[in-house]
Amino acid sequence: MSKPLLLPALGQFLATTAARNMTKATYAAVAAGIVAMVLLTVDSAHEAAPRLIGGALWACLAFFVVEWAVRVHHAARTRAMAAYILSGAGLLDTACIVAVPLALLLGIEPRSAWLLAVLWVVKVIPGVPGLQQLRRVLVVEARPLLSVLALFLLVLFLSAVAIYVLERDEQPATFGNIPSALWWAVVTLTTTGYGDVVPVTPLGRMVAAMVMISGLGVFGLWTGILATGFAAETRRDNFLKTWESVSRVPFFATLGPSAIADVTHMLRTIDLPPRTLVIRKGQPGDCMYFIASGEVEVDLPGKKVLLGEGAFFGEMALLGSNPRSANIATTTLSKLLVLDLVDFRLLMARHPDLVSAIDAEAQRRALENQ
Amino acid sequence: MSKPLLLPALGQFLATTAARNMTKATYAAVAAGIVAMVLLTVDSAHEAAPRLIGGALWACLAFFVVEWAVRVHHAARTRAMAAYILSGAGLLDTACIVAVPLALLLGIEPRSAWLLAVLWVVKVIPGVPGLQQLRRVLVVEARPLLSVLALFLLVLFLSAVAIYVLERDEQPATFGNIPSALWWAVVTLTTTGYGDVVPVTPLGRMVAAMVMISGLGVFGLWTGILATGFAAETRRDNFLKTWESVSRVPFFATLGPSAIADVTHMLRTIDLPPRTLVIRKGQPGDCMYFIASGEVEVDLPGKKVLLGEGAFFGEMALLGSNPRSANIATTTLSKLLVLDLVDFRLLMARHPDLVSAIDAEAQRRALENQ
Amino acid sequence: MSKPLLLPALGQFLATTAARNMTKATYAAVAAGIVAMVLLTVDSAHEAAPRLIGGALWACLAFFVVEWAVRVHHAARTRAMAAYILSGAGLLDTACIVAVPLALLLGIEPRSAWLLAVLWVVKVIPGVPGLQQLRRVLVVEARPLLSVLALFLLVLFLSAVAIYVLERDEQPATFGNIPSALWWAVVTLTTTGYGDVVPVTPLGRMVAAMVMISGLGVFGLWTGILATGFAAETRRDNFLKTWESVSRVPFFATLGPSAIADVTHMLRTIDLPPRTLVIRKGQPGDCMYFIASGEVEVDLPGKKVLLGEGAFFGEMALLGSNPRSANIATTTLSKLLVLDLVDFRLLMARHPDLVSAIDAEAQRRALENQ
Amino acid sequence: MSKPLLLPALGQFLATTAARNMTKATYAAVAAGIVAMVLLTVDSAHEAAPRLIGGALWACLAFFVVEWAVRVHHAARTRAMAAYILSGAGLLDTACIVAVPLALLLGIEPRSAWLLAVLWVVKVIPGVPGLQQLRRVLVVEARPLLSVLALFLLVLFLSAVAIYVLERDEQPATFGNIPSALWWAVVTLTTTGYGDVVPVTPLGRMVAAMVMISGLGVFGLWTGILATGFAAETRRDNFLKTWESVSRVPFFATLGPSAIADVTHMLRTIDLPPRTLVIRKGQPGDCMYFIASGEVEVDLPGKKVLLGEGAFFGEMALLGSNPRSANIATTTLSKLLVLDLVDFRLLMARHPDLVSAIDAEAQRRALENQ
Repeated sequence: MSKPLLLPALGQFLATTAARNMTKATYAAVAAGIVAMVLLTVDSAHEAAPRLIGGALWACLAFFVVEWAVRVHHAARTRAMAAYILSGAGLLDTACIVAVPLALLLGIEPRSAWLLAVLWVVKVIPGVPGLQQLRRVLVVEARPLLSVLALFLLVLFLSAVAIYVLERDEQPATFGNIPSALWWAVVTLTTTGYGDVVPVTPLGRMVAAMVMISGLGVFGLWTGILATGFAAETRRDNFLKTWESVSRVPFFATLGPSAIADVTHMLRTIDLPPRTLVIRKGQPGDCMYFIASGEVEVDLPGKKVLLGEGAFFGEMALLGSNPRSANIATTTLSKLLVLDLVDFRLLMARHPDLVSAIDAEAQRRALENQ
Repeated sequence: MSKPLLLPALGQFLATTAARNMTKATYAAVAAGIVAMVLLTVDSAHEAAPRLIGGALWACLAFFVVEWAVRVHHAARTRAMAAYILSGAGLLDTACIVAVPLALLLGIEPRSAWLLAVLWVVKVIPGVPGLQQLRRVLVVEARPLLSVLALFLLVLFLSAVAIYVLERDEQPATFGNIPSALWWAVVTLTTTGYGDVVPVTPLGRMVAAMVMISGLGVFGLWTGILATGFAAETRRDNFLKTWESVSRVPFFATLGPSAIADVTHMLRTIDLPPRTLVIRKGQPGDCMYFIASGEVEVDLPGKKVLLGEGAFFGEMALLGSNPRSANIATTTLSKLLVLDLVDFRLLMARHPDLVSAIDAEAQRRALENQ
Repeated sequence: MSKPLLLPALGQFLATTAARNMTKATYAAVAAGIVAMVLLTVDSAHEAAPRLIGGALWACLAFFVVEWAVRVHHAARTRAMAAYILSGAGLLDTACIVAVPLALLLGIEPRSAWLLAVLWVVKVIPGVPGLQQLRRVLVVEARPLLSVLALFLLVLFLSAVAIYVLERDEQPATFGNIPSALWWAVVTLTTTGYGDVVPVTPLGRMVAAMVMISGLGVFGLWTGILATGFAAETRRDNFLKTWESVSRVPFFATLGPSAIADVTHMLRTIDLPPRTLVIRKGQPGDCMYFIASGEVEVDLPGKKVLLGEGAFFGEMALLGSNPRSANIATTTLSKLLVLDLVDFRLLMARHPDLVSAIDAEAQRRALENQ
Repeated sequence: MSKPLLLPALGQFLATTAARNMTKATYAAVAAGIVAMVLLTVDSAHEAAPRLIGGALWACLAFFVVEWAVRVHHAARTRAMAAYILSGAGLLDTACIVAVPLALLLGIEPRSAWLLAVLWVVKVIPGVPGLQQLRRVLVVEARPLLSVLALFLLVLFLSAVAIYVLERDEQPATFGNIPSALWWAVVTLTTTGYGDVVPVTPLGRMVAAMVMISGLGVFGLWTGILATGFAAETRRDNFLKTWESVSRVPFFATLGPSAIADVTHMLRTIDLPPRTLVIRKGQPGDCMYFIASGEVEVDLPGKKVLLGEGAFFGEMALLGSNPRSANIATTTLSKLLVLDLVDFRLLMARHPDLVSAIDAEAQRRALENQ
C-alpha cells in the first residue's frame, strides 16, 4: 500500500511546491520588469543608471523565456504541447517573450520597444482573487448595463450637438466642431470636469447643468445594477462553497436535505493558514466554528488538545455568554465553517436536537477539563 | 392542410425577414448619417471631401424617405395609414425626412441645417434592449427621485445665495450675480468641479466644502433609490419571463401552482442563437438546463442525440459532481431554463419527487449510452 | 340628518378648497419673488427694469403679509393664535415678512437687503413629497452615517497635514498653511477636483492618489448605507399605505390577518387624478386593480359601466393572457391597489379560493357583456 | 448585604464617572491642541499671538503627560503596567507625549516639530461610534474589495502607458514619462479631474473617455460591494442587540425560541437619554414601545404614572388608530424596543395570543384612567 503509492504522491507534492514557487517568481519578475520599464521612461533615472535598468529588463525577459520553456516542456511530457501553445495563456506567454525582441529587430528605438513589456502585466491577472466572481456579475447583468451604456452614449451625443450649437460662436477654438463638443460632453457627463473646456453662454451653462445631473443619474443606475448583481452573486457563491464543506462535517450528517439547505444558509466558510489564532482567550465570543478540513490546537491550562476534521469549538461562549476560555489556533491550513451568534439562536429555534447535541458535547468537555 | 396554410406562413416569414433587414439597414443609415454630420462640422474634413460628406448625407436622407414610403404603403394596405402617420413613431419618421430640407429651403446655411440630422438618432432608441425595464424603475421610484431632486435644487439655490454674499466683493467678475453663483453651485454640487469659478475667501471655502459633502449625500440617496428600485424590477422581470417558459416544460406539469411558483423563483431564462456550445466536455458543471423551446445536439462518442422542447440535460454533473461528459450545442434559436447547483440542492430538499424523476432519467441515459 | 350636518361639511369643503388655493398662490408668490430677487442681482436686468423688479418684490412681500394675517386670524378663531405664532411654521412666516423691512430700516443697501427674501424658499419645503420618508432614512441610519462622516473628517485632516508637509516648500502660496491644505483635501476627497491647488512633488501626488481612492471608498460606504436604509424604508412605507387600503376592500374581508399581511406585501398603492386612463384597449395586460377609493368607468362597446369602491378590474387579461378588452379611466380622484402578474400567480398558488372568486366574477362579466 | 458590598460599588461608580470625565477632557484637549497646531502654521495667526498658541500646545502636551501617568498608575495598581505600556493604546499614548519633545530636542524647527501633534487625533478614534461595524464590513468584504482594487490598478497602469505613448510627443512636459502619466490616470479614473494635465490628441482623448467610463464602473462595483456588505451587517447587528433586550422583557418570556427569533426580527432597539419625550400627545402613532431597561413617565391628566422595566406603552394608538393620548418621557437613561405598526400587524397575524395580551392590558389601563 506504500511505496508504489507514496512515490507519485511525493512527486506530485514536489510538483505542486515547484509550481507555487514558480508563480511567486513570476510575480516578482513582473513587478521588477514593470518598475524597470517605468524608470526607463524617466529621463533622470535613465541617465543615472541606464545599464542597471537595461539589465533588469533583459533579466526579466530571460526569466520569462525560461518559464515559457519549462511550461512547453511540461506540456510536451503530458502530450499537450500544441494545445498549450495555441491556448490563450500559451499565446500570451509567447507574445510576452517575442514582442520586445521583435520590436528591437524591426529597428524601433529601444526606449519605445521596451514599452511592450506592458504585456507582462497580464500574467498577473489569473492570480487576482475574486475576478471570476466579478466576471459573473458583469455577465449576468450585461443586458441592463449595456442599456445604461446606450443611454449614456445617447445623452452624450445629444448634449454634444446642443452645446456645439450654443457655444460655437463664442468659443470657436474649443467648441468649433462636434468631436470637440463630444470631448467636453464626456468630461462633464462622467463628472470628471477637467475645466479645459467650459461653456460660457447662459444657455450653454443650462445644458451643462442638465448634463451633470444626468451624469449623476447614469452613475446611480450603473451602481444600482452592479449592487443588485453583486448581492445575488455573493449569496450564490457563499452557498456553494459552504454546501461542499457542510457535507464533510459528520455532525450535520443526521440532518435531512431540507435542514442542510437551511444550515448552509447560516454558515460562512473561511480558509485560514497554519498557526493562525482563531480564538483569543478572554475576548467576548460571537460565533462558533466547525472544522471542515485541517486541525486546530486548544491551549488549555496544562495541556494542549488537538481537534480534527468534523469537530467543533467555540460553542461554550455562545451557550453561556461567557468570554472565550482558551486560545485556539490552527496547526495546518484549515477550512472552518463559522456559525454566528445570530444564526446559532435561529438554529436553536428551528433544530433543537442539533443544539442539544452541541450542549451535550460542551458539558462533556467541561467535565473533562475540570 | 398544406398549401392554403403554407402560403401565408411563407409570406409572413418573408415579411419578418424583410422587416429585420429593414431594421438593420436603418441602423446602418443612422450610423453613416451621424458620422457624416459630425465630419461636416470638422473644418479639415469638410475641406478635404465636401462632396463625399454631402453625398453621404443626401443618400441617408433618401434612404429615410424610401423607408417612410414603405411604411406608409404597408400601413395603407392594412388600412392604418392615418393611425401610423399620427402615431409618435410616424410623426418622428416624417420629421426625420422633412426637417433638413425645410431648413435648407428657409435659407439656413447648409452646415447648420444638416445639424437637424441629429433627429435620426432617435430612430435607434426602440432597439436599445432593456430600456423598458429602466423606464419602469424610474416610474415606480419617481416620487422619491423627485423629492431628492427637490432637495438638490434647494441646496443648490441656498448655497448659491450664500456664496454670492460671501464672494461678490472679492470676485465680482465670477460671483457678481446669483445666476453666476448658481453655475458655480451646480458645478460643485455634482462634484464636477471645472475650476473655472472657485471661492477664495475662508467662509466661502467652508460653504463650498459643505456643498461638496452635500453633493456626495444627494448622490448617495439617488443611487440608493435606484438600486432599490432596480433590484425589485430585476426580480419581477425574471419571474415573469421564467413563468412563461416553465409552463411549456412538461416535466413541471405535475407540480401544483405553489410548487411552480417556487421552481420559477429558482430558474433563470437564457436565449441562445443556433450553434452555440452550451456545455463543453470536461469542464466542471454547476447547473442543469431545461429546454423551453428550440433543440440541442448532444455530441456522444460515435453518435449524435437530439433533445427537443421539454427535455433537460446537464443533470449528470450535478448528481455525481463529475465533469461534463459531452459537448452539447444548440441547433436552432433556443430558450433554455438554467437551474443552478445551489437551487438544484434546494429543489432536492423541497421536492424530492422531482429529483427522483431526474435521477431515473439520468440512469436510463447512462445505461443507453454505455 | 342633513342641514345641521351639511352646513359644517360645506364649510369644511370650502375651507379645504380655500386652503388648497392658498397653497398654490403661496407657491406662485415664492417663485415670482425668488425670480425677482435673482434678477435684482443681475446688473443688466436691474438697470433695464428696476421698477418692475422692485414692484414684484414688494407685491410678494405684501402677499406674505396677507397670508400671515389670514393664518393668525384663523388660528385666533380656533384659539390657537399663540401656539401658531410660537410654532416653527409661525416663526418662519413671521421672519419671512419681517426680515427684509427690518434690514431696509437698519439702512442696509436695498439690493443686499432683498437677499433675505431667500427665506421665502423655505415655505416650499413642506410641499416637497417624500421628504418625510428621506428624513426617516437619515434618522434611522444616523449612527453609521455619522461614523462615516467622522472617518471622512479624519482622513481629511490627516491628508491635509501630510500634503502640507510635502508641498509647503514647493508651493508656499497654495500649501503654505494647514487651512489651505484642508481646502485642497476637501476638494480632492469629494473628487470635485477644481484644479486650483494641485500637488506637484512625487510624494505629494502619491498622497493625493490615496486621498482620491479613499474618497471613492467613503462615497461607496455612504451610498451603501443610504441604499440599505432606503430599501427598508420603502418596504415599510408601502406596507403601511397598502394595509390601510386593503382593509377597505370587501373582497379581502374574508381573509384572516395572516393572509391579509401576505396580500398586503403583494399590492402596491397608486393615487390617480380624475379622468386618467388606467387601461388602454388592446395593450398587453400585466396587472389587475382593486378600487380602494374613488370610481372608474369601463368603456364597453355601446355602454359605459361604472365600478366603485371595493370593485376590481383588469383581471381578464391575467386569467387568459389576452390583451386588454376595453378602455378604463377614473372619473374622480381614486386610490387603486395594483396586483402585478407575478403576484397574481403567487396568490393563485397560496390562496386558490381568492382566485376562484375573481374567476367567477370574470365569467359573470363576460356573460353579461356578450 | 450592605456596607461591604456598597463600598466597592461606590468606588466603581466614582471610577466610572472619573473615567467618563477623563474621556471628555481628553477630547477637549485634542480639539484645543489641534486648533493650536493648525493656527501655528498660519503666518498671520502665528505673528499675532505666538505665545498664546505655544502656551496652548504646551498645556495640551502637559495634559496628555498627566493622562499617561494616571493610566500607568492605574494599570500598575491592577498589576498590568507592562501589558498596558506594550499594548497598542499604550504605545500610542506614549508616542503622543514623546514625539514633539523628541523632535524639539533633535533640533527640528518648532513650527515643524509641533506638526507631530497630529498624532493626538488618533486618540479620538476609539470614541467614534459604529467604527466597529464599518470595520466588520470591510473585513467580510475584503476579498471582493481587493479584487476591485486590483482591477483599478490594472486599468490605471494600462491607461497610463497608453496615454504616455499617445501624448508624449505633443506634451513632453506633462506626459513625458510614465509616472506623470500615472498621475493623470489616477486623477481621471477617480473622476477627480483637476485639469492640470489633459490629453489633447484625438486618440488620447478617446483613451481618456474610456478611462472615465471605467472609473464610473469601478466606482459602481465598489459601492455595490459595500452596500451589500453593509446591509448584511446592519441586519446582524440589529438582531444581536435586540435579542439581548427581548430576553429581558417578561412579556415575551412565554414564547418559544422560534417565536422569539421571529419577534426579534421585528423589533428595533433605541437608547434614549433621561427626560426625552418619546410620545407627544395628539400626534399620530405608528409604533409601540417595550421597556428593556430604564423607566418612563406617562403624563396623564391629573396624575403621573411610572412604567418600569418590562412594561410596554403606546399600544392604544395602534389598536384603535387614535392619536397619542398622553405625553410620555423617559426619567432615566432607557433602552426601548420599538415595534412598528407594520410589524405589529404581522405579529397580530402570527402570534394572536401576544396581541390579545396587549389588548387586555390596554383595556385594563383604559378602565383605570377613565
